[in-house]
Amino acid sequence: MASNVVLSEVEYNVVGKRPVRPDGVDKVTGRAQYGADLHLTGLLHARVLRSPYAHARINSIDTSAAEAHPGVRAVVTARDLPFASLTKEELGGDYQRLKFASDNFLASGKALYKGHAVAAVAADTVHAAEAALALIKVDYEELQPVMDVQEAMKAGAPLLHGDLLHTTYMGNASDDPSNIAAYLKFEKGDIEQGFAAADVVVEREFETASVHQGYIEPHNATAFWNPDGQLTIWCSTQGSFVVRNNTADVLRHPVSRIKVVPMEIGGGFGGKVTFYLEPVAAVLSRITGRPVKLLMSRTEVFEGSGPAPGTWMKAKIGATRDGKITAAHVTLAFEAGAFPGSPVMAGATCGLAAFDLENGAIEGYDVVVNKPKTAAYRAPGSPQAAFAIESVIDELCQKLDMDPIEFRLRNASKEGTRKVEGPVFQKVGLVECLEAARNHEHYQAPLEGPNRGRGLAAGFWMNRGFHSSCNITVNPDGTVSLIEGSVDIGGTRASIAQQAAETLGIPYEDVKPTVVDTDSVGYTMVTGGSRTTFATGWAAIKAAEDVKQQMVERAAQIWDTDPENVEYQDAVISHLSDPELRMTFKELARQIYPTGGAITGTASLDPAGEGNSFSVHIADVEVDPDTGKTTVLRYTAIQDAGKAVHPSYVEGQMQGGVVQGIGWALNEEYFFNDRGHMANSSFLDYRMPTSLDLPMIDTVIVEVANPGHPYGVRGVGEVPIVPPLAAVASAVSRAIGVRMDKLPVNPGAILEARWANGH
Amino acid sequence: MASNVVLSEVEYNVVGKRPVRPDGVDKVTGRAQYGADLHLTGLLHARVLRSPYAHARINSIDTSAAEAHPGVRAVVTARDLPFASLTKEELGGDYQRLKFASDNFLASGKALYKGHAVAAVAADTVHAAEAALALIKVDYEELQPVMDVQEAMKAGAPLLHGDLLHTTYMGNASDDPSNIAAYLKFEKGDIEQGFAAADVVVEREFETASVHQGYIEPHNATAFWNPDGQLTIWCSTQGSFVVRNNTADVLRHPVSRIKVVPMEIGGGFGGKVTFYLEPVAAVLSRITGRPVKLLMSRTEVFEGSGPAPGTWMKAKIGATRDGKITAAHVTLAFEAGAFPGSPVMAGATCGLAAFDLENGAIEGYDVVVNKPKTAAYRAPGSPQAAFAIESVIDELCQKLDMDPIEFRLRNASKEGTRKVEGPVFQKVGLVECLEAARNHEHYQAPLEGPNRGRGLAAGFWMNRGFHSSCNITVNPDGTVSLIEGSVDIGGTRASIAQQAAETLGIPYEDVKPTVVDTDSVGYTMVTGGSRTTFATGWAAIKAAEDVKQQMVERAAQIWDTDPENVEYQDAVISHLSDPELRMTFKELARQIYPTGGAITGTASLDPAGEGNSFSVHIADVEVDPDTGKTTVLRYTAIQDAGKAVHPSYVEGQMQGGVVQGIGWALNEEYFFNDRGHMANSSFLDYRMPTSLDLPMIDTVIVEVANPGHPYGVRGVGEVPIVPPLAAVASAVSRAIGVRMDKLPVNPGAILEARWANGH
Repeated sequence: MASNVVLSEVEYNVVGKRPVRPDGVDKVTGRAQYGADLHLTGLLHARVLRSPYAHARINSIDTSAAEAHPGVRAVVTARDLPFASLTKEELGGDYQRLKFASDNFLASGKALYKGHAVAAVAADTVHAAEAALALIKVDYEELQPVMDVQEAMKAGAPLLHGDLLHTTYMGNASDDPSNIAAYLKFEKGDIEQGFAAADVVVEREFETASVHQGYIEPHNATAFWNPDGQLTIWCSTQGSFVVRNNTADVLRHPVSRIKVVPMEIGGGFGGKVTFYLEPVAAVLSRITGRPVKLLMSRTEVFEGSGPAPGTWMKAKIGATRDGKITAAHVTLAFEAGAFPGSPVMAGATCGLAAFDLENGAIEGYDVVVNKPKTAAYRAPGSPQAAFAIESVIDELCQKLDMDPIEFRLRNASKEGTRKVEGPVFQKVGLVECLEAARNHEHYQAPLEGPNRGRGLAAGFWMNRGFHSSCNITVNPDGTVSLIEGSVDIGGTRASIAQQAAETLGIPYEDVKPTVVDTDSVGYTMVTGGSRTTFATGWAAIKAAEDVKQQMVERAAQIWDTDPENVEYQDAVISHLSDPELRMTFKELARQIYPTGGAITGTASLDPAGEGNSFSVHIADVEVDPDTGKTTVLRYTAIQDAGKAVHPSYVEGQMQGGVVQGIGWALNEEYFFNDRGHMANSSFLDYRMPTSLDLPMIDTVIVEVANPGHPYGVRGVGEVPIVPPLAAVASAVSRAIGVRMDKLPVNPGAILEARWANGH
Repeated sequence: MASNVVLSEVEYNVVGKRPVRPDGVDKVTGRAQYGADLHLTGLLHARVLRSPYAHARINSIDTSAAEAHPGVRAVVTARDLPFASLTKEELGGDYQRLKFASDNFLASGKALYKGHAVAAVAADTVHAAEAALALIKVDYEELQPVMDVQEAMKAGAPLLHGDLLHTTYMGNASDDPSNIAAYLKFEKGDIEQGFAAADVVVEREFETASVHQGYIEPHNATAFWNPDGQLTIWCSTQGSFVVRNNTADVLRHPVSRIKVVPMEIGGGFGGKVTFYLEPVAAVLSRITGRPVKLLMSRTEVFEGSGPAPGTWMKAKIGATRDGKITAAHVTLAFEAGAFPGSPVMAGATCGLAAFDLENGAIEGYDVVVNKPKTAAYRAPGSPQAAFAIESVIDELCQKLDMDPIEFRLRNASKEGTRKVEGPVFQKVGLVECLEAARNHEHYQAPLEGPNRGRGLAAGFWMNRGFHSSCNITVNPDGTVSLIEGSVDIGGTRASIAQQAAETLGIPYEDVKPTVVDTDSVGYTMVTGGSRTTFATGWAAIKAAEDVKQQMVERAAQIWDTDPENVEYQDAVISHLSDPELRMTFKELARQIYPTGGAITGTASLDPAGEGNSFSVHIADVEVDPDTGKTTVLRYTAIQDAGKAVHPSYVEGQMQGGVVQGIGWALNEEYFFNDRGHMANSSFLDYRMPTSLDLPMIDTVIVEVANPGHPYGVRGVGEVPIVPPLAAVASAVSRAIGVRMDKLPVNPGAILEARWANGH
């Protein structure tokens, strides 16, 4: 079904092809080693005691009975963490951030959400550990929880943190304690004037629920703390160096005494950028002198890890009769969960990015509530913002009776557009995506029949650069070993190896990629933000260039000439003045051991030039008027990949993002009772779409080469989750004739909307 | 007790100090992960069926009953190895070598020693595997074994290999099949004329027994063969890349599809340069699709791994009345075990190295016998040759009534001496060692009392260079991660880290060394031959130089100047023209992430310039005339280390080598019955010296800097095992007045010698 609209002009030998995944066999045969598969001699098993209250003061914790339980080796609480005694004076500006991080590992003073870790037990068996949990006596004083971002912002709301520092990005700082951890505002032009010039203005409030990434593999960590201070951590993470740095920070332990070994990862989607178990396992190991393994159950994942934030948003957009936006004003209030740090900044950066605005303003609030601390979830912040803004745009199109693509093309951001928050776009592919959507057979086919609707939405993600490192070593059989620090979630072993192979001019199959631990490669940031194929790929290109230079020098040595007289072209090394003297990569590789040893190329970089991504989605739905059930009839995702290094994986990212977005739109939510307890913390009750719920997700890759990368690569993983919320909600709105402004638009919500509107 | 005679003039900051061992805590607390500690999900346990005969034709193997045994997953024999079908035509010149290697993993056609692997079983439990071994029906036809090197060379001896290719290093090639796999001869001057000019000639035959390295940790291997052909091997080895290469060779599998993960190693001494289990575990894994673990018992280690060769030797040396050697003629016949490849070449290279000879000849025979294939054992071949030659020298000194040190000084090799086999010595420290021995309080103290004797002997090892690779990555806290391919047997994590620290000018504690797998670092040869501290140390120096250059470039970038204007001195980076601009290594390290990412230095080399080592040992013994028991009263080992990077480890190597040499001299031997069955294959019956059997081994490190290494390093691990055989045997000979020419000189041998000489 996938059709590839190639706008880029360069054809490569390996980049852009669809070779076999290096870790594919391991994964489909169950051989890949995940954290849960790790067994160490003398291993202890740990379990975490979690708060039964959404908000409670912890007056005391008595662990003596648990410690006396047979098989129990150690019990820890927050008093065993360094922050039990560290002060602001000792840590300065970092104190608040690190104290919050520490408190999320093990609560001190207060439990701030149901599922908040309070204590942990390490024992000979997991059964002994679980039995001991029941013996820990915690004296709680239950407090009123605040579960809603709007309620939490009100004066007089229950306060989570009495001493919350009011970090403000700009303006509106306050000295009174509140649940608002941060406020930001971006502004461009004059919105009053803009709205005055509008012929039509749509203003609407929106809400979205807390949703979870739903990765298959629960969090896990095994730690082994040596008496000499060496700490080794095996875990499931999107960023081994981030685990290293943050563990060092929270445990006040030197970064060089910590080695993090990233095991295979069963999904992350941003939720494994942060971590929950590692420092607890580490402290249990330090106390017991034994390796300690800590796993989450699915319920613990829901209640104790980080969902995407629930939000309240307001969007007001005005346009002229001929479809030109005159002003936009957006307010985003994002739940941070129990500790500050929602992705409201990214939401604000992405929300209006698709529109070339003269007048725009976007405000954001980061608000703490008694829910688990939110974590990144694929394009964090952008799907929610897009839901609000793209829904208003859709409503504007309805009011103007204008084709949604035509409207967007009239207002589309392009090279040179200055965004509301300041930056000017380099070459971007929004117009190309909109045109590809307009030309697509899906969009051209009429949607007929009752109770049906078509929604269209655009999405944006800036993508990221950040640090990456690679080493490439040449083997005597002419293959190369590619060492990388980037954990492979979505096929990056392949996409990085392809770029190395392309640069070296050798076959993809001759590059053997390996993800190694933090001691064995240079600093590399998380696999996330759609940075890995871009930045680690570039590190592989640079390391390959280094290998090429060394191969040239080795050939020069063999031919007894200067390296300047030797050329490397398409994996053939030739003497520039003697046509007889030439060697293939493989031939020279055979000779490197006798001529001076192995060749290792290395590169570390922090590249600028990440290429922003746009996507445009088309969703056709049918709503059952009796049950409120929505069936997605057809779905097409169009996206600018810059250059799709491995088109199958790009398509997979697009399809995966769409599926998750449809889940947000139609079904998924954390359902809390009035005491703040999640009522659906299992995959049976937390309803994610399955393949039976969905049509084939059709994909179109648009390639507008990113001028900031050697092969034109942009990121591709984030942006496909951005449009579906608005696309599906708009489709439903058009199908039932009522604008749906609250997610999920599940059957109950649809029936209520229909009834409220007299249907 | 150790006294350090420093002749080198350079003092270093880190090199030459005695810092704490990085792996010390892991090892003393039992946390280090050895191969036996490895557990993988779905692991199968394998056991090997071994030949009960020293020499037998294998007519058939029926594995059907074993395969039907509950829990058994696979049974393999030689028919499952590629060499069951490969032909000479397909493999050319490599065929014979690889066929022999394959046959040693699993016997095909014939079993050539008791303990020769014949089949292997993988099962759910080790018990099921063991039970199944008993169900394998092998139809053997027992043949006459040949267990003695002299018998094996005789015409008409039972032949091990009917088609043995007669590789001859030089001369005396033969077309008739025999057990002589190779013959070599080195010659210099005119030995006939030399002997004619002698006033005294001593000629004597010698024998030594098969002895084992006796490492604590038995061989082990776990293999996991993926359906896509990726093979991972975890094992105890001195050379992960050697396991990779040889497994690839024998299993005809691409080298780049094999990853070898070296686990911690519990001793090797050369015996883990080769390997026994890995290909068998790999094939069992390929068949079962499961990881397979294979461990040896101690008896299997004795009977199925590689001891040092038993030998027969003849040495004839003539000298003038004033102690000048006129000629030497040495013949070495070394047992190869069941397949060709004894260290007779190394024995011939080392044997006469201590003497600046005008006329010398040395001949060597590599002879197959029905014993396990011999393996390297610390200075392979040199201790045996030194036993013969140094014993004859001692007897010459007795006949000339000349001090053994004085005699050796008159004939000592030094810079410019041309060895019998050709090479000319660079700067070497034999004279310095002899002078240090003469000046030592031990040598100057008279040895009084009856039944006591003092023996003195010199020893030689050439040391080795070969390939090594290192990567060094700078951490933001100013520490560095040092990645190396050299397995650490004797403290090389420290000795290599010291050289990196010295080169970078940072504290030793700031270098964190890690030994990684074959995918994660450049090609690195075995830890053996006393090459590692020399060659891998040098790779670390080069990688550190690379880091320094990159640090200079990064500082230049920060200061917006050319790298030529920046200097790196003692871990301080300074602007050459602006004295205000300077940063320590730690300060600059903090800035590398924001200024372009990590810094990784890398180096691979195959250095010439290994510095040859000499040692001189003094042994005082007392023999109990009634029981024949020898007590070592005092022992001093003097050795040229070039530069002792970590003197404690050098002393440890010297003491360890001496202890093993005393074992060879006094106690250790493979005791075979007349059917060729080893009768003492346990540590209870195979008597190695314990600390209760020995005095403190006094050590003197002499430092004659090796001009071929930046810090003057030579190797130190091999040469200390060379002199003890001769030193102790000469001491015993002098104590009892009978020249002992057969090792071990155990109580029985001593009593028989005394009785035969009428005592």
